[in-house]
Amino acid sequence: MSDDSSDRIARHLRSVAAEAEPGSRLPSTRALAARFGAGPVTVQRALAQLVAAGVVETRAGAGTFVRRRVAPSARLDMSWQTAALGPERTGSSAVGSTMRQIPHDTIAMHSGYPDLDLMPMREVRSAFGRITRGAGAGGRDQVFARPPTAGLPDLRRWFVDELDVDGWRDSDAVIASGGQAALAATFRALAAPGDPIVMESPTYWGAIAAARQAGLVIVPVPRTGGAPAAADLDEVFATTGAKVLYAQPNFANPTGDVWNAAQRDDVLAVVGGHRAFVIEDDWAHDFALDIAPRPLACSDTDGHVIYIRSLTKSLSLTVRVAALLARGPARARIENALTVSDLYVAPVLQAVALDVVSRPAWRTHLQRLQRTLAARRDSLLGALAAGAPELDVARPPGGLNLWVSLPTHRADGSPIDADLVAARTLARGLSISPGREWFPTEPTGPFIRLNYAAASPDRYDEAVSILRAAVLDGTM
Amino acid sequence: MSDDSSDRIARHLRSVAAEAEPGSRLPSTRALAARFGAGPVTVQRALAQLVAAGVVETRAGAGTFVRRRVAPSARLDMSWQTAALGPERTGSSAVGSTMRQIPHDTIAMHSGYPDLDLMPMREVRSAFGRITRGAGAGGRDQVFARPPTAGLPDLRRWFVDELDVDGWRDSDAVIASGGQAALAATFRALAAPGDPIVMESPTYWGAIAAARQAGLVIVPVPRTGGAPAAADLDEVFATTGAKVLYAQPNFANPTGDVWNAAQRDDVLAVVGGHRAFVIEDDWAHDFALDIAPRPLACSDTDGHVIYIRSLTKSLSLTVRVAALLARGPARARIENALTVSDLYVAPVLQAVALDVVSRPAWRTHLQRLQRTLAARRDSLLGALAAGAPELDVARPPGGLNLWVSLPTHRADGSPIDADLVAARTLARGLSISPGREWFPTEPTGPFIRLNYAAASPDRYDEAVSILRAAVLDGTM
Repeated sequence: MSDDSSDRIARHLRSVAAEAEPGSRLPSTRALAARFGAGPVTVQRALAQLVAAGVVETRAGAGTFVRRRVAPSARLDMSWQTAALGPERTGSSAVGSTMRQIPHDTIAMHSGYPDLDLMPMREVRSAFGRITRGAGAGGRDQVFARPPTAGLPDLRRWFVDELDVDGWRDSDAVIASGGQAALAATFRALAAPGDPIVMESPTYWGAIAAARQAGLVIVPVPRTGGAPAAADLDEVFATTGAKVLYAQPNFANPTGDVWNAAQRDDVLAVVGGHRAFVIEDDWAHDFALDIAPRPLACSDTDGHVIYIRSLTKSLSLTVRVAALLARGPARARIENALTVSDLYVAPVLQAVALDVVSRPAWRTHLQRLQRTLAARRDSLLGALAAGAPELDVARPPGGLNLWVSLPTHRADGSPIDADLVAARTLARGLSISPGREWFPTEPTGPFIRLNYAAASPDRYDEAVSILRAAVLDGTM
Repeated sequence: MSDDSSDRIARHLRSVAAEAEPGSRLPSTRALAARFGAGPVTVQRALAQLVAAGVVETRAGAGTFVRRRVAPSARLDMSWQTAALGPERTGSSAVGSTMRQIPHDTIAMHSGYPDLDLMPMREVRSAFGRITRGAGAGGRDQVFARPPTAGLPDLRRWFVDELDVDGWRDSDAVIASGGQAALAATFRALAAPGDPIVMESPTYWGAIAAARQAGLVIVPVPRTGGAPAAADLDEVFATTGAKVLYAQPNFANPTGDVWNAAQRDDVLAVVGGHRAFVIEDDWAHDFALDIAPRPLACSDTDGHVIYIRSLTKSLSLTVRVAALLARGPARARIENALTVSDLYVAPVLQAVALDVVSRPAWRTHLQRLQRTLAARRDSLLGALAAGAPELDVARPPGGLNLWVSLPTHRADGSPIDADLVAARTLARGLSISPGREWFPTEPTGPFIRLNYAAASPDRYDEAVSILRAAVLDGTM
């Protein structure tokens, strides 16, 4: 009888829904139960039928509504947009595979971020609690009010203090909502559409995409022994008239390279000689494993270095906070570009970041994080050496990734294509990043990038086995 | 004796600091007290002397440190940057005075935001508590993990449902970190540097600045009876070849104008005829006071309207969340531009926004907010009519602002300059926005914008009195 009742209620509601405006609210469960002399479970069963049929939809806490029908002309003809939009600057595959969402059981070696269990979750949760209850510094409402566009003063000071050298002032820092926002705004500020920008090759895909989006022409320079050679740099500055170099002097993404002292001096001398800027993306500051290098910004004496450091990867993926340090008119121009793009950074995120990094637990977290990363790196290197000795890979002294050089050909003479290898491993449950994404121009060979910070070490052997098969077996 | 002791301790610490590396930590208060046989207050007094002298600095919870000396060459010569930076696209005053931080007792009628006491602070605090404790929807860790670049699916659905019409799908929405980020990315996506973009005049300063930053050429069209005239629009599209119109059809900022039904149809017909896009900035959706107009996006049938709506101004200044709705290849290109600029929006902010707007208290908040805003608007209009009858101001049916037309000349024949008026009122404790900031080209007369949502109504009479004196009295 209950099933009959629910069918009867469903038939009634179907006719109501057919007559009603999409989006109108149905009577409450209680009203329907009273009207049909049925129990609430019976009514719920009727509603569940209609939800399944796509006739109505429930919204938590709000009730049940007649579903808005997507127009029958769902295949709208948008072809007029193709001409209106015109040519595309960034390329349709501009967003790297590192941002891909993957199935839960796929091994995640493509990601640009560490796994959540490497983040100080407890400390971040506590900080959110303190800050949003008004127990943090600055008073009850500060984190709900509009902050200065350059960011909270204490957070700016913290980033400057981290450089730990003379010559930088708190006011040199500007807070941005993550490293990507900082570098995209810097590109727009320091160069005009059509201008050249010099980049190491390979380099971070997000910098390549942001430069293209800004209409810049990327001039690549190879790394020679881990850094751009002074002669190469001098030549590209001279021939292109470029005024900006984008670089990752420490633990470059994807290669893990670190500039040594002589290379740093050389680059600064060339950049200074050409009256140019170097944008230092210190993305792996918190992921120093074997050595503790100094930022290039520490050696800057006259405003050539623009320094970017983010906390997103080491503190919390949800605390999108970075700082950009610059001096002179360049700083004013970059702050202007950031404000025009974003107005300001959510003060609650700034306050949480400051709260977490100001506590002793932050140092403890970084030490534990670095120990864990070093162990994972060595574990993945071991698995590769044992399970895929054909692959060529160096031991990076910091960062989150291995940069793997694949053989160019298989034993049968067939060429190895890193894009196809990545597609094959993904089909078999391993997500990796193909090398092409990291080159501003043509790749110099088949490479892949393996992140050792996101996937569980339990699955390294399985990952290496999938990878080796995809490299050596040309069939899908 | 205590003063002598603190001097003695201070002298000792000065010599310690002079020898020590900048950044090194001084002995604790307890240790110093023990060493000098002094009380903690005496030690604190010594430390305060040295802090005031800039010799040491204290960091909350961490101790006292030898201050890092800013290099003696603090006046670095950055003049080389001027040539390296080259011409500026946005103009150095690109950021409007609405972003200004003012002294606490200044009357804030310049702001672009409502006062904190108009925001649902309790609901937002509760939502942060639920979400960061892991009690929200989606599981304990979801808000600490990387979200899809387009945003949390339920939040995207909420924004689409708010349009309440057929023909839009959940997947048409992309989440951005605030309306400014959404529109800046849209400009970059839909137009290339050097391209024209059509804008109503006057219009939102942030749109003017973002378009200039993107290298676009702004083509202004005047509002005639509240909206661009079809003939004017047709002419500028035809003569410039523009493919994009930026507009605020409802409660335009700064004027409060609303397009009527015929004007909306006209604009859509012209835009469609030129195969162009209209970017609808629905900034005041939650500030409808006298009428409840529909977004232009509700009338779009073939992908010409790009729709932007932010929650920052009505939900919380710290919850920087907006949505951008677009269909066809334009949507893909805009999402790409957003991702390249920002990667993704902090999931904790997305989850808090969704939590707040999904509860019945949200509707209650909006009703109360709109009643309060209407009362304040009428109160400020009343104060102006009584205290400054020389000023010409219309009653806006929604939004946060009055757009005031000043007389062009005083009784003595001297011209009235709105920039000078704004400078004068600021010196006397009233912060307002001069009209020039809202015109893409030359202002058509002296205007000012007065925000009625930020300052307390208790001070409206005082504000009007300061304003009238600044307008009618040409001396500073």
